[in-house]
Amino acid sequence: MDNSEELERVCVFGTGDLGRSLGLRLLQAGYGVVFGSRRPHSSSSLLPHGAQVLGHAAAAQSAHLIFIAVQREHYDFLVPLANQLKGKVLVDLSNNLKKNQYPEANAEYLQSLVPGAEVVKGFNTLSAWSLQNGPSDANRQVYICGESVEAKQAVIAVAIKLGFSALDRGFLSVARELEDFPLQLFPQWRLPLRIAIGLSAAFFFYLLIRDIIYAYVTQSKDISFRIMVSLANKVCPIVSLIMLSLCYLPGVLASFLQLYRGTKYRRFPDWLDRWMLCRKQLGLLALGFAFLHVLYTLIIPIRYYVWFKATERTNRTTQFDMTTAWRGDSYLSLGILGFGLYVLLGITSLPSVSNALSWREFSFIQSKLGHLTLLLCTAHTYLYGWNRFLSSSTYKWYTPPGYMLCLVLPSVVLLLKLLLITPCVDRTITRIRQGWERGADQRNPKDSQPLIP
Amino acid sequence: MDNSEELERVCVFGTGDLGRSLGLRLLQAGYGVVFGSRRPHSSSSLLPHGAQVLGHAAAAQSAHLIFIAVQREHYDFLVPLANQLKGKVLVDLSNNLKKNQYPEANAEYLQSLVPGAEVVKGFNTLSAWSLQNGPSDANRQVYICGESVEAKQAVIAVAIKLGFSALDRGFLSVARELEDFPLQLFPQWRLPLRIAIGLSAAFFFYLLIRDIIYAYVTQSKDISFRIMVSLANKVCPIVSLIMLSLCYLPGVLASFLQLYRGTKYRRFPDWLDRWMLCRKQLGLLALGFAFLHVLYTLIIPIRYYVWFKATERTNRTTQFDMTTAWRGDSYLSLGILGFGLYVLLGITSLPSVSNALSWREFSFIQSKLGHLTLLLCTAHTYLYGWNRFLSSSTYKWYTPPGYMLCLVLPSVVLLLKLLLITPCVDRTITRIRQGWERGADQRNPKDSQPLIP
Amino acid sequence: MDNSEELERVCVFGTGDLGRSLGLRLLQAGYGVVFGSRRPHSSSSLLPHGAQVLGHAAAAQSAHLIFIAVQREHYDFLVPLANQLKGKVLVDLSNNLKKNQYPEANAEYLQSLVPGAEVVKGFNTLSAWSLQNGPSDANRQVYICGESVEAKQAVIAVAIKLGFSALDRGFLSVARELEDFPLQLFPQWRLPLRIAIGLSAAFFFYLLIRDIIYAYVTQSKDISFRIMVSLANKVCPIVSLIMLSLCYLPGVLASFLQLYRGTKYRRFPDWLDRWMLCRKQLGLLALGFAFLHVLYTLIIPIRYYVWFKATERTNRTTQFDMTTAWRGDSYLSLGILGFGLYVLLGITSLPSVSNALSWREFSFIQSKLGHLTLLLCTAHTYLYGWNRFLSSSTYKWYTPPGYMLCLVLPSVVLLLKLLLITPCVDRTITRIRQGWERGADQRNPKDSQPLIP
Repeated sequence: MDNSEELERVCVFGTGDLGRSLGLRLLQAGYGVVFGSRRPHSSSSLLPHGAQVLGHAAAAQSAHLIFIAVQREHYDFLVPLANQLKGKVLVDLSNNLKKNQYPEANAEYLQSLVPGAEVVKGFNTLSAWSLQNGPSDANRQVYICGESVEAKQAVIAVAIKLGFSALDRGFLSVARELEDFPLQLFPQWRLPLRIAIGLSAAFFFYLLIRDIIYAYVTQSKDISFRIMVSLANKVCPIVSLIMLSLCYLPGVLASFLQLYRGTKYRRFPDWLDRWMLCRKQLGLLALGFAFLHVLYTLIIPIRYYVWFKATERTNRTTQFDMTTAWRGDSYLSLGILGFGLYVLLGITSLPSVSNALSWREFSFIQSKLGHLTLLLCTAHTYLYGWNRFLSSSTYKWYTPPGYMLCLVLPSVVLLLKLLLITPCVDRTITRIRQGWERGADQRNPKDSQPLIP
Repeated sequence: MDNSEELERVCVFGTGDLGRSLGLRLLQAGYGVVFGSRRPHSSSSLLPHGAQVLGHAAAAQSAHLIFIAVQREHYDFLVPLANQLKGKVLVDLSNNLKKNQYPEANAEYLQSLVPGAEVVKGFNTLSAWSLQNGPSDANRQVYICGESVEAKQAVIAVAIKLGFSALDRGFLSVARELEDFPLQLFPQWRLPLRIAIGLSAAFFFYLLIRDIIYAYVTQSKDISFRIMVSLANKVCPIVSLIMLSLCYLPGVLASFLQLYRGTKYRRFPDWLDRWMLCRKQLGLLALGFAFLHVLYTLIIPIRYYVWFKATERTNRTTQFDMTTAWRGDSYLSLGILGFGLYVLLGITSLPSVSNALSWREFSFIQSKLGHLTLLLCTAHTYLYGWNRFLSSSTYKWYTPPGYMLCLVLPSVVLLLKLLLITPCVDRTITRIRQGWERGADQRNPKDSQPLIP
Repeated sequence: MDNSEELERVCVFGTGDLGRSLGLRLLQAGYGVVFGSRRPHSSSSLLPHGAQVLGHAAAAQSAHLIFIAVQREHYDFLVPLANQLKGKVLVDLSNNLKKNQYPEANAEYLQSLVPGAEVVKGFNTLSAWSLQNGPSDANRQVYICGESVEAKQAVIAVAIKLGFSALDRGFLSVARELEDFPLQLFPQWRLPLRIAIGLSAAFFFYLLIRDIIYAYVTQSKDISFRIMVSLANKVCPIVSLIMLSLCYLPGVLASFLQLYRGTKYRRFPDWLDRWMLCRKQLGLLALGFAFLHVLYTLIIPIRYYVWFKATERTNRTTQFDMTTAWRGDSYLSLGILGFGLYVLLGITSLPSVSNALSWREFSFIQSKLGHLTLLLCTAHTYLYGWNRFLSSSTYKWYTPPGYMLCLVLPSVVLLLKLLLITPCVDRTITRIRQGWERGADQRNPKDSQPLIP
């Protein structure tokens, strides 16, 4: 470009994937780009067209803002450049391969090597890929931190021009947190996954004993092949229903806590806060188990065992039982409707769908339809149990069957929710959520207008 | 921050969730933030680190732009501050709990209380949550309105720095519309939902009479248990097919209207416009009903009734009928392929997927594949009917069965579409869409170049 | 607006859908908008409120930036305006109806008509619809090109204010590429679709001969009705499994290539690069076929043929075979779990979901869970074959059955992957990916620090 001297210039140290992608994007956003290189003449062939390549010292002098797209192990080449880097803004883009690899954050290490420069940590959550293809939804946001406000302002300005939105997270001591960010592996899914695995294992062994080992011990029948489908198809719906109620329990508990305290201005206990934050994950895992349950149910008729049973039963003559027909069909129908709503809840929790909903629409779906789903699935399970609740033959070895155990929690949640939506309780809750505090008027007059600061 | 005096300062009145989130985000975007508070010393503990807290008057004087994150009921505390607020820009963030709660919009009320200030309505469509977590997709867009162009420009500048894109909607009289926005509950889903519920109810009663009451009256057989699955599995596909054709009918009608008028430069009638705008919702509801139909069909073999019938039929000896085998398998196969395409259409209408498609790709999927889906599902239904169309025993009480009724609309849509894609009609339509007008050259020479303004 | 004289003014030529939408959006972003029209008085009724309408010459003089929202065929009206357009920035928004419609790009043609103006191509990838409804995810990015850096900077500034992020793609010679962009129809889906269609056709005819024609020739049995469901349900899983392994094969090959070369700094051959780029599409098509396979399998019990067989088999007396029960249930269970993971992979490849994942999370799901899915589905197919691999009756006309053919590729991929994750190979690969090069230290000292530029 002939008139590049009129453009604002930035410098990029590092000609790897990341440096090249960043340079290309800076060029496209209208910046003049100077790459700093140890061998300016040999490395220019791979670099984006329109960029200049200079030696490190010359490159550093040509721009105020310098992006450091080099791995931490090679930072020492910057020490001899201390003079040229004095007063410059150095943006540290680096990441590590694992957490706590080094005693201090890369950006802090960089600052200690070049004390005269203003180090800003940032852009490290972006991959070379997302730099090249442009920001999209969740990776539009770029976090930065650093000591100097002016340096951070300069970096924010570049970020906006590249199409990102930059957030200042504070001083350089936050750098470690930003560097750990790209290394995290589903932090908010850990607890829900552990609950799911724990519940699955517990119910698997419980049902293994009750169904298969019981049959072996008392009737010497080997029905171990049932593990693969029948047992799986009991564990899945049980875990699904329990996790769905675990997803709605914290909301109900929070309401009762607010009701008991008479105010919304006190923090929830930590365990409740953490629980509330993983509701979405609990719900989605529950949906996954429900999905498996549906598949396991639908393949029943093509199982060899079922086919074999069908050939046996031909000489039996039974009377058509209207109650059984009603119960069975209602049971299936409730399950289908419940699963349909379940899928709807799952779809609305996709980021792009939930972003398109207004707050009121989102809460309508997740709360009203969510509790309806829980109601349908609980009713589905009650119909499955039907009249076996009272027959003593159900309780092998004095243990209740799995579906009975899994009904406890959803029933409690639904009962509590029912209490909350009775008119008088509902009115109090609504007033508390609008800022009203019980006893505020009499006891503590200065708290009476909580929303005026 | 030691050098915050060099930063641009904004002021936030209100220390609730919204005020705190907004303050935090402003700080992170590089603004100096001053909270205005009645008790500056007691409220500072909860506020984001780095913000200043002053009394209302002092805070108002320290900044040009003041965000009012206070509920409307408490606005009167601003009246005594009229002097300090003169000439300032007040951004009204407030929302109401229901529509038409007050005679005038909150922003208009605020303007009447502080006539000397420039009130701008805006940011009210954002929740504290989305402020804190950053803009994403659909809630990136912020609407503002107000009388003063300069005031709105100042607010737009802040919005861009926070990562939002602000749209000026006009004068302050639009404020009510903006305030109603977060309160709306699926406005564009209402009509399609009403149609779906209306159709379902109508066909439910129609089939109830034809199937269950007819059997009771003429043969005294009680088959009421069939309501739960068999009847549901007739209503679902019928409603689904009708709604799918309602989704493609307006497009076909619009083409014929353009063909009849010979121009694309005249507005469609209002009812057609409104219908066109809810096509996506019609299609997605149709997909929901199709999904239920699939589940209801797949559970057929595990129903008690079907199991009972299977044990009965053993003494029958029938001949294998090749035609029935062909028909039945084709019927199932068409249904599966139709449903597969249906799901594909549903996936491409997810916001994040449709945004990633070019306009030509989107129209290819929604129009070409959409009509193919309609064709497959219609053929599936015709194969279901097969040769029963002509047998008189089909017409109980002289009424046609449900699947026959539901075939009328899709057949019409497909026939009309077939007409539209015949070469000669297609050519005319294409020319009209490119701006050609019938008779324009002879009759009205000044209209002949419609695209030159 | 009374004080519009203080706003920055832009001009729009063209009052069609696109011009009007653009004008409205510019007004909402705080610009003063002047429409240029041949008949300023007759065309103003449809234009957005707040815009001015002038004759072309007057409009051109009122602003520095002029958007040309007119079709290329009508560009000649600009020739007489050459004087007024001298030095102005003309933004060419136009698109064509098909590729290579004209010898040169529209923007180049415009530049040749008005040599004194600075033509910038841009905004042409947006539809009137997305202009009006605001940028979202994938269409937030706007590409521009042109000769003058200042002109492009001016256009970038407008784009940012409208909420878009503009990327400079270079000189005006790139205009043709930008104009072809909205015309493309799934370019990255072509190869995977061709592979899918080719495989489906090949296996369809192979199985047609082996199953249906073989039965007809050797036993004179007409079982052609099986084409619709049984054959489809063999083709679908075969194609699905092959395409899934084609999706993971290039990654494995690339690793071996890096291992063989001992460096990651050499480009992959072109065919491998192209293959790697369509992995997502291969995987999604494979998921589609798996989905059809699931549906085809689940409807088996409601087929007429199966019902007929069931009525026949009643007089047979067989012994319950425990091995068959175990094998059958395991086969089904593996299929269900494999399909569940498959769906999970599909969901995480939705743009909005994958954008929300960190790079490490995305690669965990797509690589670890992806290979697990392949393993489950391959095991599912092996269990389907079971002991028929060795029986000679399986090899009709000396050809192996379809499921045996489709097992070759996934088995190879899984074996190679197994090799790659053995500790010693894995260590070498990891070192290579971190920048280590085999023999670099001895042979070529200047390449030894590849990441220092």
